Amino acid sequence: MRQNNWFDPFYIQSHLTEEESNIQKNVREFCNKELKSIVIDSNKKNLFDINLYQKFGSLGILGQTLNSHGGSGTSNLAYGLVAYEIEKVDSSYRSSISVQSSLVIHPINEFGTEEQKNNFLPDLIKGKKIGCFGLTESQAGSDPSSIKTVYKKTKDGYILNGTKNWITNAPIADVFIIWAIEEKKDHKSIKGFILEKNFEGLKTSVIENKTSLKISPTGQIILNNVFVPENLCLKNTDGWKSVFSCLNKARFGISWGVLGAASECWIIAKNYVENRIMFKKPLASNQLIQKKLSEMQIEINLGLASCLLSAKALDQGKDIINAISILKKNNCKKSLDIIRDARDMLGANGLLDEYHIMRHLVNLETVKTYEGSEDIHSLILGKNQTGISSF
Amino acid sequence: MRQNNWFDPFYIQSHLTEEESNIQKNVREFCNKELKSIVIDSNKKNLFDINLYQKFGSLGILGQTLNSHGGSGTSNLAYGLVAYEIEKVDSSYRSSISVQSSLVIHPINEFGTEEQKNNFLPDLIKGKKIGCFGLTESQAGSDPSSIKTVYKKTKDGYILNGTKNWITNAPIADVFIIWAIEEKKDHKSIKGFILEKNFEGLKTSVIENKTSLKISPTGQIILNNVFVPENLCLKNTDGWKSVFSCLNKARFGISWGVLGAASECWIIAKNYVENRIMFKKPLASNQLIQKKLSEMQIEINLGLASCLLSAKALDQGKDIINAISILKKNNCKKSLDIIRDARDMLGANGLLDEYHIMRHLVNLETVKTYEGSEDIHSLILGKNQTGISSF
Amino acid sequence: MRQNNWFDPFYIQSHLTEEESNIQKNVREFCNKELKSIVIDSNKKNLFDINLYQKFGSLGILGQTLNSHGGSGTSNLAYGLVAYEIEKVDSSYRSSISVQSSLVIHPINEFGTEEQKNNFLPDLIKGKKIGCFGLTESQAGSDPSSIKTVYKKTKDGYILNGTKNWITNAPIADVFIIWAIEEKKDHKSIKGFILEKNFEGLKTSVIENKTSLKISPTGQIILNNVFVPENLCLKNTDGWKSVFSCLNKARFGISWGVLGAASECWIIAKNYVENRIMFKKPLASNQLIQKKLSEMQIEINLGLASCLLSAKALDQGKDIINAISILKKNNCKKSLDIIRDARDMLGANGLLDEYHIMRHLVNLETVKTYEGSEDIHSLILGKNQTGISSF
Amino acid sequence: MRQNNWFDPFYIQSHLTEEESNIQKNVREFCNKELKSIVIDSNKKNLFDINLYQKFGSLGILGQTLNSHGGSGTSNLAYGLVAYEIEKVDSSYRSSISVQSSLVIHPINEFGTEEQKNNFLPDLIKGKKIGCFGLTESQAGSDPSSIKTVYKKTKDGYILNGTKNWITNAPIADVFIIWAIEEKKDHKSIKGFILEKNFEGLKTSVIENKTSLKISPTGQIILNNVFVPENLCLKNTDGWKSVFSCLNKARFGISWGVLGAASECWIIAKNYVENRIMFKKPLASNQLIQKKLSEMQIEINLGLASCLLSAKALDQGKDIINAISILKKNNCKKSLDIIRDARDMLGANGLLDEYHIMRHLVNLETVKTYEGSEDIHSLILGKNQTGISSF
Repeated sequence: MRQNNWFDPFYIQSHLTEEESNIQKNVREFCNKELKSIVIDSNKKNLFDINLYQKFGSLGILGQTLNSHGGSGTSNLAYGLVAYEIEKVDSSYRSSISVQSSLVIHPINEFGTEEQKNNFLPDLIKGKKIGCFGLTESQAGSDPSSIKTVYKKTKDGYILNGTKNWITNAPIADVFIIWAIEEKKDHKSIKGFILEKNFEGLKTSVIENKTSLKISPTGQIILNNVFVPENLCLKNTDGWKSVFSCLNKARFGISWGVLGAASECWIIAKNYVENRIMFKKPLASNQLIQKKLSEMQIEINLGLASCLLSAKALDQGKDIINAISILKKNNCKKSLDIIRDARDMLGANGLLDEYHIMRHLVNLETVKTYEGSEDIHSLILGKNQTGISSF
Repeated sequence: MRQNNWFDPFYIQSHLTEEESNIQKNVREFCNKELKSIVIDSNKKNLFDINLYQKFGSLGILGQTLNSHGGSGTSNLAYGLVAYEIEKVDSSYRSSISVQSSLVIHPINEFGTEEQKNNFLPDLIKGKKIGCFGLTESQAGSDPSSIKTVYKKTKDGYILNGTKNWITNAPIADVFIIWAIEEKKDHKSIKGFILEKNFEGLKTSVIENKTSLKISPTGQIILNNVFVPENLCLKNTDGWKSVFSCLNKARFGISWGVLGAASECWIIAKNYVENRIMFKKPLASNQLIQKKLSEMQIEINLGLASCLLSAKALDQGKDIINAISILKKNNCKKSLDIIRDARDMLGANGLLDEYHIMRHLVNLETVKTYEGSEDIHSLILGKNQTGISSF
Repeated sequence: MRQNNWFDPFYIQSHLTEEESNIQKNVREFCNKELKSIVIDSNKKNLFDINLYQKFGSLGILGQTLNSHGGSGTSNLAYGLVAYEIEKVDSSYRSSISVQSSLVIHPINEFGTEEQKNNFLPDLIKGKKIGCFGLTESQAGSDPSSIKTVYKKTKDGYILNGTKNWITNAPIADVFIIWAIEEKKDHKSIKGFILEKNFEGLKTSVIENKTSLKISPTGQIILNNVFVPENLCLKNTDGWKSVFSCLNKARFGISWGVLGAASECWIIAKNYVENRIMFKKPLASNQLIQKKLSEMQIEINLGLASCLLSAKALDQGKDIINAISILKKNNCKKSLDIIRDARDMLGANGLLDEYHIMRHLVNLETVKTYEGSEDIHSLILGKNQTGISSF
Repeated sequence: MRQNNWFDPFYIQSHLTEEESNIQKNVREFCNKELKSIVIDSNKKNLFDINLYQKFGSLGILGQTLNSHGGSGTSNLAYGLVAYEIEKVDSSYRSSISVQSSLVIHPINEFGTEEQKNNFLPDLIKGKKIGCFGLTESQAGSDPSSIKTVYKKTKDGYILNGTKNWITNAPIADVFIIWAIEEKKDHKSIKGFILEKNFEGLKTSVIENKTSLKISPTGQIILNNVFVPENLCLKNTDGWKSVFSCLNKARFGISWGVLGAASECWIIAKNYVENRIMFKKPLASNQLIQKKLSEMQIEINLGLASCLLSAKALDQGKDIINAISILKKNNCKKSLDIIRDARDMLGANGLLDEYHIMRHLVNLETVKTYEGSEDIHSLILGKNQTGISSF
């Protein structure tokens, strides 16, 4: 029957391996069982249950692309599918996985010593430890190169000073990847360090007045003469290139994730208008409604098709830097458009938290902002095309 | 100097009478003194201070277009300017005034008996009593003609049964304008009634899980065999025409109000980007930012120009039914677009409640929905153009 | 009846004086009688009948805001209404009037000597002579300050050298307003001159391969050691301020004009869908069609409301520089959007020249480009708002 | 180097077989050599060189997916790539191939007898004969089921009467696929016939006043008691399903083709802004320009990614009916948006025919209209999603 594949008109499912399909299915079941039931309440109370990390660990979705130290060794495509499924529930949960996998496990694995890997990766992958990524500062959002946190070399390590802000997981983290510039040097001197929560001089605080991504704990990291021993410096970093390697991993996950949120809202809206009677017929029988549904279907599937090809390219070791900027920018924008339309289609009921859409709408304001706003990615793409920087 | 009139490029201020200017100025000062300081906290706590009604009354902005019973007797233009100023702070405050003026005082004044006017108007205009407008029901949002609340004529009055939903002010109201259909008759039998909070069988409840317009108390009205004496029926109504007369009054106020919210967010964003340094220069020096600022300026002022002409037409007694659908649809849509862009321009800070924009963004989801969604007004306009109903 | 004022929902007509209404009516009749019958054929043949200038002159619409030298002495509002009516037929006709009035008669009147006024204005106002405005050059479109045409002072006049391009009317002009920079000086030395077609060293050519505004003759002006006597220098210019004074006059006319083109296409589309049967009912009965009609109605009337207020401000001597950038940018963009939608609504028939819309669609590509593209006006507005130039 | 893959960020080329790559390359070379040099002149003169058909035949791109009768036996993906390359030059050339392959060769091959295949396919595939597809009528554009052309069964064949309109190739066709309804029966009686140009009673005429797709000859087919012998009825058709099978083939080609036109305009604009100096720097250095370039890159590549997956699915025999409506609607819309932006980026030069963009802009008005407008495909998609028809 012709309608059968409206949800997957490009047969994206047919391009998954059996393992990838199974991972997606398991995660979807986990979400339905464990996350959907708590999400409304957790959001209302700004509550993140830190036990979730161990559940994520048991599911094999922390650092999942690693082949060692307990990682599941999945493809990047599977990593994308996981982000997609998790963010159907809430961007906060996907964010917590993105941070742990792409911004903590990934840099330790890529740039760390064997000792660092052995010490940190197993617990991070099991979810016994929670990590965070200390790059952003108040005065350096889209322009990370202006960060002011500094390190000073001492005989047997480094002294760090500075303040990080807007750090996902900061208030609950055990492990802190901190990026800093050498004192009195320029931004090219950047280095990464692994800190732990009990280090003297390290304090964190919570941002209380956030209106979005409320489940996700976000905060400041204050570094006041924190001593980091030599063996906790990430030895194999290559300046900013290493920082961007982390960010790009995370952006890849975001690009899949937001399509999950959009997809969920599409289906909520579709079910709603098929059942809601107005002027004696289902809302779904209106042309204006059907046009919106068709545009949701279109943009979600264009996004997924592009994500699929990008994941395949990444799994083949290709450089997908342009694809990543395209997907971060496009998928956030289109997903937010879809979610806004879905909200509208539910009328007054769309204002109630039990219909979920409003939470996604508000969450995506964060997701479109972090890891490079739409404008920044436009200009990165423009620069890569023309060879001219305009920012 | 050329820049002087960027805020008012069409010289709208020059079309106001001195009285209209003064009212606008007084209300703006009141907002700055009394409302801005409480709005963030009130929103966080879903708190509406009912004493505000008496303050609104003292300001002369309840039922302000009435020439009798204590009304200020202002123009409709002045009424629009008040909505514009109040909604700069929060759509909830403007909603409370719209309801009291357009949906409670207006129908009593237009369709009520002398006795009803004398009994209710003075206290409503002074803000000593709070009113609400009971039309909407759960199954009848955009299609009010399908309401199910009924009245049955008795010897000396009426018995009302039914449940109203999504009623602004229901939980705090003293006076209830209730619309109902005669039992076993069709929707043309609609009549309006004035009820009071202590009537036997009348109960209200609060919608707790609203995510938007949180300051404004919204709820259900449950009518269980409520007896309404003959003298509390609105005698001079003319069926649905009277209902729409109320709604149109309210829509006129909304059309001005949302431009206030947009205007406030424009200025917040403008100040922010002028002061925020990124890549070593103010954000405001970026072309992509300046384009957004120019589009905010354009759409707000196109909206205000149209509001001005419509208000003048209304004050001359012209039928502005088409203008009202244009303004409700256009101004809500364009204002929300502006507010979303403003939010984006503030980056992560735009996610914090102290920057106000996120609250406006979330509020306008309600405002665009109530009193006729964008789609409904498109189809009303299309029907008035072509003579063909498509819904 | 409610539908009565769908065409003028803001009652703009009620703000015209009787004289303004009459001018609009006369011009509309002239268009219907004299222009509509020839426009399709003239466009196909790239044909401009230069006798039209004398007809425009007889109608009193050349230099119409002048009170002397034969000018009709109308308001700027009347000038806008004329542009609106003429461009309903074709942007080329409106362009020819804009050039003559705003770019030739206006600068001679504002910056010329009494002798210059007496010599040139009467024939230009009667349409006995045709003028053009030589500012633009191939390498200086949006950036006029980079023009390369130069003048050299001699004992009794000036020698001019350079090449102007994209000059409306150049191939048919009798009178040439030429702007040039002093040799070896910077762009601040700009001066304006009045040249005539028989001046030695002045040649013009036609741009043959234009795809848009085909009725309007456009071309180059080649100046090869052209001697201009002292008394043909515009004495009272004040550098670039004078140039922009001309451009702003023209932009004001364009802003009204494009709404005429949009309005015509709206009505053509409306009539078409009301009469075209598809799936056994008029196209007009479809929601998707009605939504388009409503948006045409909205944007045209928002534009007209803003034009009206701006014209009133201009007639009161106010500085409307911001309004002009708003209107040029907004009205061109929105009109083109409307025309594109109208074209789409006519399906295959919209591809035929006898339905007019395709010609308007193609014309507006020129109109949106000349006198400052959308982007340039965005950045001008942004600069006026923020005080920071981003270009 | 990071910029290397800006043109193909999703590595679509890596998914082609060597054969597919070669076909694309050959066609691209043919276009550069044979088509680009004539396209401007041919467009100006409404000229289609019918010898091109034999060249297309020699290239192996007519009926290219057929494995018999001289067909090249390529994949559907290769067919898409050919459409993409050809439409970089002009939509007219792609249209002529689409008609021949999808609307003439395809139905004869699918629904014809062996004798019909042997008689017609070899010459059609070699380009020795030109075909056309007679379905559309003046009163039945988007609603083909309302066609009025009829057949009447006679002893040894059929008598056809009616008039087809908007038929690509009608004026130059040798072979006519004509669809008709049985006299006095309803639209379900539809049958297809093969007619030849010399049949008595068959006449064609040219639509002269087309403003778009000017190279492509379009016209009417007048059928006045045309006798069609029994053996020229397409025996194996299955009512409307067979008609839509043709249309869907054609839509698939269009979906690829328009991305070719968009891609060409993107690159023209990119080269232009990189070389055009304005305000002393390349236009390409402006943020507003780079944003446009990035959006061109994004939408073209989202479209191509989706086309690729759809072609793969089709080559595997999957039902891609939803994908086709998505791609026809989305790719036409996005391509036209891109082309309009490209036109704008060239300023006045974009109005000249030698820069090609204006021709593409005007052509795509046809392409978005034929084979189902955007609105129709929205509603088809909506219907397939919801199970409710809204038209």
